[in-house]
Amino acid sequence: MSADPAYLHAQADSLPELFAPDTRNPFIARAAALRERFAEDAIERDRAGGRPTAQIELLKENDLLALLLPRTHGGQGEPWSTALQIVRLFAQVDGSLGHLYGYHYGSLLSPRLRNAPAQTDDLWRRSAKARWFWGNNANSFSKSLFGRRDGDYFVLDGFRPFTSGSHVADFLAVAWEDADTNERRFAAIPADRTGIVIEDDWDGIGQRQTGSGRVSYHGVRIHQDEVLGEPAQLDPLAAPAEIWRGITGLQQQSVLLNVFIGTAQGALLAARDYTVNQSRPWLHSGVARHVDDPWVQRQYGELLVKTRAATALADRALISLDHVFARGQALTAEERGDAAIRIAAANVLAGEVALQVSSEIFEVTGARSAVRKHGLDRFWRNARIHTLHNPAEYKTRNVGSWALGEGYPQPGTYQ
Amino acid sequence: MSADPAYLHAQADSLPELFAPDTRNPFIARAAALRERFAEDAIERDRAGGRPTAQIELLKENDLLALLLPRTHGGQGEPWSTALQIVRLFAQVDGSLGHLYGYHYGSLLSPRLRNAPAQTDDLWRRSAKARWFWGNNANSFSKSLFGRRDGDYFVLDGFRPFTSGSHVADFLAVAWEDADTNERRFAAIPADRTGIVIEDDWDGIGQRQTGSGRVSYHGVRIHQDEVLGEPAQLDPLAAPAEIWRGITGLQQQSVLLNVFIGTAQGALLAARDYTVNQSRPWLHSGVARHVDDPWVQRQYGELLVKTRAATALADRALISLDHVFARGQALTAEERGDAAIRIAAANVLAGEVALQVSSEIFEVTGARSAVRKHGLDRFWRNARIHTLHNPAEYKTRNVGSWALGEGYPQPGTYQ
Amino acid sequence: MSADPAYLHAQADSLPELFAPDTRNPFIARAAALRERFAEDAIERDRAGGRPTAQIELLKENDLLALLLPRTHGGQGEPWSTALQIVRLFAQVDGSLGHLYGYHYGSLLSPRLRNAPAQTDDLWRRSAKARWFWGNNANSFSKSLFGRRDGDYFVLDGFRPFTSGSHVADFLAVAWEDADTNERRFAAIPADRTGIVIEDDWDGIGQRQTGSGRVSYHGVRIHQDEVLGEPAQLDPLAAPAEIWRGITGLQQQSVLLNVFIGTAQGALLAARDYTVNQSRPWLHSGVARHVDDPWVQRQYGELLVKTRAATALADRALISLDHVFARGQALTAEERGDAAIRIAAANVLAGEVALQVSSEIFEVTGARSAVRKHGLDRFWRNARIHTLHNPAEYKTRNVGSWALGEGYPQPGTYQ
Amino acid sequence: MSADPAYLHAQADSLPELFAPDTRNPFIARAAALRERFAEDAIERDRAGGRPTAQIELLKENDLLALLLPRTHGGQGEPWSTALQIVRLFAQVDGSLGHLYGYHYGSLLSPRLRNAPAQTDDLWRRSAKARWFWGNNANSFSKSLFGRRDGDYFVLDGFRPFTSGSHVADFLAVAWEDADTNERRFAAIPADRTGIVIEDDWDGIGQRQTGSGRVSYHGVRIHQDEVLGEPAQLDPLAAPAEIWRGITGLQQQSVLLNVFIGTAQGALLAARDYTVNQSRPWLHSGVARHVDDPWVQRQYGELLVKTRAATALADRALISLDHVFARGQALTAEERGDAAIRIAAANVLAGEVALQVSSEIFEVTGARSAVRKHGLDRFWRNARIHTLHNPAEYKTRNVGSWALGEGYPQPGTYQ
Repeated sequence: MSADPAYLHAQADSLPELFAPDTRNPFIARAAALRERFAEDAIERDRAGGRPTAQIELLKENDLLALLLPRTHGGQGEPWSTALQIVRLFAQVDGSLGHLYGYHYGSLLSPRLRNAPAQTDDLWRRSAKARWFWGNNANSFSKSLFGRRDGDYFVLDGFRPFTSGSHVADFLAVAWEDADTNERRFAAIPADRTGIVIEDDWDGIGQRQTGSGRVSYHGVRIHQDEVLGEPAQLDPLAAPAEIWRGITGLQQQSVLLNVFIGTAQGALLAARDYTVNQSRPWLHSGVARHVDDPWVQRQYGELLVKTRAATALADRALISLDHVFARGQALTAEERGDAAIRIAAANVLAGEVALQVSSEIFEVTGARSAVRKHGLDRFWRNARIHTLHNPAEYKTRNVGSWALGEGYPQPGTYQ
Repeated sequence: MSADPAYLHAQADSLPELFAPDTRNPFIARAAALRERFAEDAIERDRAGGRPTAQIELLKENDLLALLLPRTHGGQGEPWSTALQIVRLFAQVDGSLGHLYGYHYGSLLSPRLRNAPAQTDDLWRRSAKARWFWGNNANSFSKSLFGRRDGDYFVLDGFRPFTSGSHVADFLAVAWEDADTNERRFAAIPADRTGIVIEDDWDGIGQRQTGSGRVSYHGVRIHQDEVLGEPAQLDPLAAPAEIWRGITGLQQQSVLLNVFIGTAQGALLAARDYTVNQSRPWLHSGVARHVDDPWVQRQYGELLVKTRAATALADRALISLDHVFARGQALTAEERGDAAIRIAAANVLAGEVALQVSSEIFEVTGARSAVRKHGLDRFWRNARIHTLHNPAEYKTRNVGSWALGEGYPQPGTYQ
Repeated sequence: MSADPAYLHAQADSLPELFAPDTRNPFIARAAALRERFAEDAIERDRAGGRPTAQIELLKENDLLALLLPRTHGGQGEPWSTALQIVRLFAQVDGSLGHLYGYHYGSLLSPRLRNAPAQTDDLWRRSAKARWFWGNNANSFSKSLFGRRDGDYFVLDGFRPFTSGSHVADFLAVAWEDADTNERRFAAIPADRTGIVIEDDWDGIGQRQTGSGRVSYHGVRIHQDEVLGEPAQLDPLAAPAEIWRGITGLQQQSVLLNVFIGTAQGALLAARDYTVNQSRPWLHSGVARHVDDPWVQRQYGELLVKTRAATALADRALISLDHVFARGQALTAEERGDAAIRIAAANVLAGEVALQVSSEIFEVTGARSAVRKHGLDRFWRNARIHTLHNPAEYKTRNVGSWALGEGYPQPGTYQ
Repeated sequence: MSADPAYLHAQADSLPELFAPDTRNPFIARAAALRERFAEDAIERDRAGGRPTAQIELLKENDLLALLLPRTHGGQGEPWSTALQIVRLFAQVDGSLGHLYGYHYGSLLSPRLRNAPAQTDDLWRRSAKARWFWGNNANSFSKSLFGRRDGDYFVLDGFRPFTSGSHVADFLAVAWEDADTNERRFAAIPADRTGIVIEDDWDGIGQRQTGSGRVSYHGVRIHQDEVLGEPAQLDPLAAPAEIWRGITGLQQQSVLLNVFIGTAQGALLAARDYTVNQSRPWLHSGVARHVDDPWVQRQYGELLVKTRAATALADRALISLDHVFARGQALTAEERGDAAIRIAAANVLAGEVALQVSSEIFEVTGARSAVRKHGLDRFWRNARIHTLHNPAEYKTRNVGSWALGEGYPQPGTYQ
């Protein structure tokens, strides 16, 4: 059996694009170019950890930090799906940058949730203009940062854990407990405010440059004009008073799932390069090139099928998120619930596939590929740590419970 | 933690639609109604095997047998995706009818491939008008049916295996070997032609009413006017001379994969009904209702995520098939190859998911559900036999080989 | 690369024995011979359902029904592991006979649990002598069979579900509720007692000849001499008062798991025969024989590795059961718990492997193998239904809970 | 339902031993104690890479380096299974030490294979007495080290890759190509011989202290008395001339598989400690302790079942290896082949389970556990790299090919 040459690629010249970005969108095109820059030292930066300062600078230079803000405020009025496709692209080479880029928008959009429209308008205009990068100091339920009134100020002492992005941020979304009332308060402040110390103590097995360690507060003063909205009772299981504010959890889960998608895609691409260019056929294989081994073909086929399926489901979740985001305050519980199910389903599969792909690629790149200089292990480390922040078990149960007629998941930070 | 009632369904009244058909398309709406009719005795008919005569009659009454023919010929000019969404719907309750419905179009469209435009036009007009159902007597590579010239006729003796649909067909697409030249010839003839015997010997473990057994030919006379196109060399591995004729394999693989999708969906729906309405909580579960068991929720969540992912990939493959079908003779090797990869990927995943879902549902329906009167095992039996007609291993290799830069699969009956 | 002929079998003559029975034990040797007899019509009997009367007769002729009884009572004093290895052998060709054979011993040994030593001695002597086959009318927690006192008799009306083996039994272990006190009573009575009706209504998707349907009682009289032990409160979750009586659940779970092992082994053996003797290589494989396809080799390798692992774990569980059985009334809670964990672990894996093997064999036997006359689907149907009687989920949790330091599972019928 | 306290552990005091070493064997008992020492800084040493010098010293102090040598030569005459159980124990905390310990014996025993009995006797006596640790400079098929005759000497120039253990070795088993004849020669020489440079360039993603990088040779002189046996043709696919010499591959595969077993066991033990002592229940779990979550229990149950199954199969492979080792030169091709199949099967499963366990533990230890100071990721990195040295695909095919009657695998370095 001889194949018709018409069906054969000239492989030496080009491999097929497996996950082509939609470069008709100029922002995605710009991000695709940046990805190549990020790729250059992604392996080194993974090993070094610390701060991707130059990369954040490139995001500013390319004006990619205000895509989701309204045009009226100096933004580009793009939907979430644009930002999340960029998250994927970055995560193909650098999970940390994918994560940081997505979380930036979570923090940047958060003032709106506090029902402080004038402050939000002002913050967004300044952020778009100055190309601020935002870090998250409001993410967890830990009671470790306390504020006391002092005239027109709150004075903050303590620390916040899991402060992804703060180490490269211009501005911080911060939350604290009022030491007297125990209520939670929110503000947006410059990251260089006196008394703020970025601890640079992040030691994760992956997502090494996300800076997800601690930020300490030593008598940090926040003026009451910087405080956003009313105090809130902190009950991590309570749904927000207004349905549309429950979009936060959907945004966050969407960032995570698109980091997973990018990680799976990137692992497969990096492995393919290695297999095609460097792998040797196995001693007992009887084939001249590793890519001629039916086992190698099957393995790539299987991983690609899984990755494409996860991507297809993720694409549908993007549409859902765009929809609920566009609905704004008109969002209904049903619409929110429907999106939550779609995003949860996509998240579960994306995480599972990212873990499978990032581990199984080694079987077809081979023993010599598993050294640190090739950096292939970073995909698994990135997927492994990043899939833990909201157990797939619970998202899966939420999907199943809904399917069984038990209703949508209770809105919350993680679902 | 108490859930906000706003997020709860009134479950007793309605379960969420998991795989809602697009009933804006009137043909799909009609098919969705028919599905309910088919469901009524699907379990009995699975056990009985034989011929779904009344069901084929309903297809005629509902005028669903010419959807893919041009309007100019009395058809409805619908794309393949419409027929294949109907395949899914039928397969949700009856894999055999899904199969037969899809294969009908394969046979009905086949005259076109023989480059006999006048005959094709005539056959299509008559078929649309008379609402013929087509059966396949041309499917395999076995050399078991031979024709000899006798004046203006060919006289056929022998048999064909795997003649799905012939047992309920009005018209047959038939292929045979010329006893003298060994070339393969094709014709389209009425199923009641003298000398044709439907053996009704199909004994598959599933797809019980597909009639995929033998048809015997005892001196069957075929006039040369009924013969379509030129004789062909039969080489099962050779690509067709013209690229666009390689669409056959894509159509066939698409029918299969949408039967798988429907089977997975149907298994999940049937299981859900049982779980919600009949299953009892496990003795040691400590919950009042089976659906409150976190295990049951997880299991449904997991199976739904997988089924939705397979469906999403299948939907993309539908678009590919519509595209190549619309391109007609302008189809390029690259376009054909791209569709082949997408369809192969969707097929592999759909088959895998159909098998997983149809086996694992039992774990959450429970011991009492596994009796024949509930018919839940038919989904696995249908998926199991139907996934064997083209090994997933080879489709997976084709996808991988392409991804590794080795080009598109050689066009053929199965790929 | 050419293989050294010294390492090649003369395949035509003999395939390697994959799961050789220990025929040094004469009872196992006898059972291995019987297996061949059972195999002859196993496929037909699977389709027919009903009663394996001739096969039970062969068990009697071969004197295999008293292996576990003491020699002092006319038995052979064998450990449970002998009976369970025979269960495996039978289940390799006929899951129903494996099941019935194992459950026979459960019922035969049950009088001992009622603390009625004199009656037990008498029943065992008579059973050994007359080669009785025992059926189970005491297995479930349903309250559907009630007894009323009538002088020296109890009169039973109602029915029992899941009465495996009763349709071919000489003697029945029966349990009922006292209509006045609601307490549970037990007796052992001849199966032909007036008023007992075997309903022959078993309709399972698999294990077709186990007769696991209903037995109806119409005024059945049981003399108080036939009643075993004191009345008992029925609490399905309560541990038995004496630790050693908790062996029942271990025996039952062991029977199940060895049916799974036999099913996995049998499926693999039957598939291998088909693959070696009948399967054709795939069209695009490029190999002369199906067994030369690396995919086929891998698939058999993978299924054999899994089956051997499950068997190895099951073998260890056999040792555990023999140990607790030998300890008798001296059994401690720790010993019982340790065996329960080992048996649960083996059961979980055996069930999982039986399902995987019995489904995946088809991929390497091929489309033509999936017809009913070859009977290959019976292995999956047998494994599927038989694994549902005690959810693997809960057994798995029991193992995990113990590993996490939370103690042994509460003794009970299923754990 | 309340559990009987008799079945509950006092968890606070002790967790059940999941993989108790057989400490009746004094060498295993000694190794079990050493394991605790190795555990103390295993995480640090994983991060640092380099040389486990102090740990090798402890092996010497504990006289564990001559277990497999005959008592007549100063050894302890233990079977391979003793050494491999120690490999497991060490790998539970430190995969590198497991690997090094096992490979030490491979090199130490290798002189015997060269048919140089007098030299072997002498080397073994000296090794036992001086408690030498052996490193491997003979492992690969690369032609990168060449020797030239110079009077009574060979002078070696070049390098060897994959020289595990050489960085802490007293003695080296070395192989080179004769620059003139292209034949392969073997010798055993002191590691401090002039001209040998340990490059310390090992950069694997795991097995960080195995020193599996390069050793360079700069005019290294080897006296012809140090050369072992006759020159050999190097054909990596050729079986050795004498069957018993084919034991090398079995030894090597056994070391690997027991490193996998230890890695799986160690990952599970380390995760359990974390889960029991540090993990918090998930926000939406509704349970007070993480171990009360049915999901957590199931996950540990599943991973333990898999690990125990792999261990059971590995234990059987140990018996096989002991058997062929004991047979010595009387070994037949059938005996060798049978052991090869058993070892391959155990290897495949052990690798698969090690990968699954080492990745999935994180799901039940949680996000906070995935930081480098806890070192939980080392298990996956160790398993991932170490499973690549001989593709599971080919071992699986070997098992399947044998099962299909195609004979035993061709003896070789990897099978």
